[in-house]
Amino acid sequence: MSDLLPLPRPLVLAEDRLVILDQTALPQTERYLELYTPQDVFAAIQKLQVRGAPAIGIAAAYGLYLGLRPLANCQSPVPASAVMDRAEDVARYLRSARPTAVNLAWALERLLSALRHGLAGGLDARELVELARRTATTLLEEDDAVCAAIGRHGLELVRRVAAQVTGREIGILTHCNAGGLATAGWGTALAVIYMAHAAGLPVHVYADETRPVLQGARLTAWELQRTGVPVTLICDNMAGALMAKGRVDLCIVGTDRVAANGDVANKIGTYTVAVLARHHGIPFYVAAPTSSIDMELPSGEAIPIEERSPEEVTTIAGQRIAPTDVDVWNPAFDVTPAELVSALITEHGVLYPPYTEALQTLKLRRP
Amino acid sequence: MSDLLPLPRPLVLAEDRLVILDQTALPQTERYLELYTPQDVFAAIQKLQVRGAPAIGIAAAYGLYLGLRPLANCQSPVPASAVMDRAEDVARYLRSARPTAVNLAWALERLLSALRHGLAGGLDARELVELARRTATTLLEEDDAVCAAIGRHGLELVRRVAAQVTGREIGILTHCNAGGLATAGWGTALAVIYMAHAAGLPVHVYADETRPVLQGARLTAWELQRTGVPVTLICDNMAGALMAKGRVDLCIVGTDRVAANGDVANKIGTYTVAVLARHHGIPFYVAAPTSSIDMELPSGEAIPIEERSPEEVTTIAGQRIAPTDVDVWNPAFDVTPAELVSALITEHGVLYPPYTEALQTLKLRRP
Repeated sequence: MSDLLPLPRPLVLAEDRLVILDQTALPQTERYLELYTPQDVFAAIQKLQVRGAPAIGIAAAYGLYLGLRPLANCQSPVPASAVMDRAEDVARYLRSARPTAVNLAWALERLLSALRHGLAGGLDARELVELARRTATTLLEEDDAVCAAIGRHGLELVRRVAAQVTGREIGILTHCNAGGLATAGWGTALAVIYMAHAAGLPVHVYADETRPVLQGARLTAWELQRTGVPVTLICDNMAGALMAKGRVDLCIVGTDRVAANGDVANKIGTYTVAVLARHHGIPFYVAAPTSSIDMELPSGEAIPIEERSPEEVTTIAGQRIAPTDVDVWNPAFDVTPAELVSALITEHGVLYPPYTEALQTLKLRRP
Repeated sequence: MSDLLPLPRPLVLAEDRLVILDQTALPQTERYLELYTPQDVFAAIQKLQVRGAPAIGIAAAYGLYLGLRPLANCQSPVPASAVMDRAEDVARYLRSARPTAVNLAWALERLLSALRHGLAGGLDARELVELARRTATTLLEEDDAVCAAIGRHGLELVRRVAAQVTGREIGILTHCNAGGLATAGWGTALAVIYMAHAAGLPVHVYADETRPVLQGARLTAWELQRTGVPVTLICDNMAGALMAKGRVDLCIVGTDRVAANGDVANKIGTYTVAVLARHHGIPFYVAAPTSSIDMELPSGEAIPIEERSPEEVTTIAGQRIAPTDVDVWNPAFDVTPAELVSALITEHGVLYPPYTEALQTLKLRRP
């Protein structure tokens, strides 16, 4: 699968180090960082050099492995229990890099759980360290598989739209970055686009710049340009005019959390895109790995919306663009109600309304 | 009227100079510039130190006066025809500062026309120069009167909404800057807000930052903060989420041009606001001085939409925020179809659909 990846992998384990694409240097510079220790990984996560929930989880898993690796190479062998103790310590440390990142805690717990089973099964120190490495790589491969499956299912939706569009490009609007940079390489929403492009469909992507943090301008535009997918950058407020001109055939976005009724939380501005799509009769698709589906949440109303610092809005790249002390509303996410979502694209297939029923048919993976 | 202005006047004629508020220094600094010559005024218009169609027109008119003023103070009297010749030259020069600004050409033509009548009527050089000064001031006073009338008519609409809202603020969303800074002092959309605030209505304004040029963040937020009107700055893509939370009771925006059927061209992003307002059942009002109504245009489709430099999108305050050479779509305006416009607020009163009929009842001033 990885040889088909649209992008150079944003994180790769080499022998004794994790090599990551530094997302803070994008879009100006494609720079790779070499991380040798859990401390290096911790710093990279905190500085947002690696970002995106799945990517953070995988980076942390490799960080845990890097913390155990010296124990496999000691002159005098260490007891297996010492590896387990170290693993618990390192996991606790890494978890604190971004305490609210669910995937981070989940990935570390996957590794610890594998190690506990290994310890109970009588593995020695060297074998446990090797198990940590293999488990981290399994997380990465699972992410590839999930994203690629979403891409393939979504491709069928794009084909259906393409069948109604002849002699011109298929316009696809996306918001924020649900791309390879946020995962092990494929992305979720962008996996669909990469698959469609690879299948020879004449897709043309319109990337919302996605204020305030500009993930669309900085990351999505970069990713698509890097991979040769035709892309046009727009400001968020141009999406309506673009649709009115008939240049958007479908919208596809990622999600941070899907409630049991199909309500979707995603980057602020997603809801505005969904309303515009409905007004123009354009399908609005959400790429939703089942790991983002939270059946404990009855509806989007129960999803807590983080409000972030006013400085994200009042300054750009260190430059002040608004009056001092002006009041700002800066929610990080919004909730798109299920009735505006044309379909949810999961790794197990495409779900259509009513979502309450459709989501219950999924066998959801529990951490 | 001027003593009631919400803001210090952004342009004032002193004896021998025009004093303008430097809009390029906002929102950081409230700096005034002294312009003594047509060359000074030309430069200020070109550098966008003065901006907004009505404000540019008035500044240019004063610039023409400043160019004639030396002829009134010559040791040896000059012939009246020399004043007229100089006026034609200076007008031609000033018109080229921003060739597409309709108000600029219109204001200069008003002055030239007055001078031609004065010349035919036998005025001497000194009297012609004085006529230029008075005519320029008349333009400013007319602008005040038009804006204040729009404010008063709009106030009645706000009162109607307020009557249904008790015990909380009246949320008003605006886009771009249709404010005092763009006119002689009152603004159009913001005149309504200033009147409502002055009338004691508990208005709370949400200012869209208005990418790419950020007039909302830089100018509208500054104006409202400066005048004590409660204001919260949001990114453009937050408007939908804000409406979904029930925090917007009405929208009000300005316009660059209204077609004979009521279609409205305004700053890019206005259409998105109008679609969102319709989806949420929120009134969407357009403050439209009759000078912006163009009965020659049958519909918005005939309004040419200027596309501007990609750099406005890919850089902010000189900082690059997107990949090099990425394709960009950057229209300066969009068209909101009449069916999304709840009312047009003109200086002669509020117009309701069907606009084709309503607009024909207006006695439109012709340049």
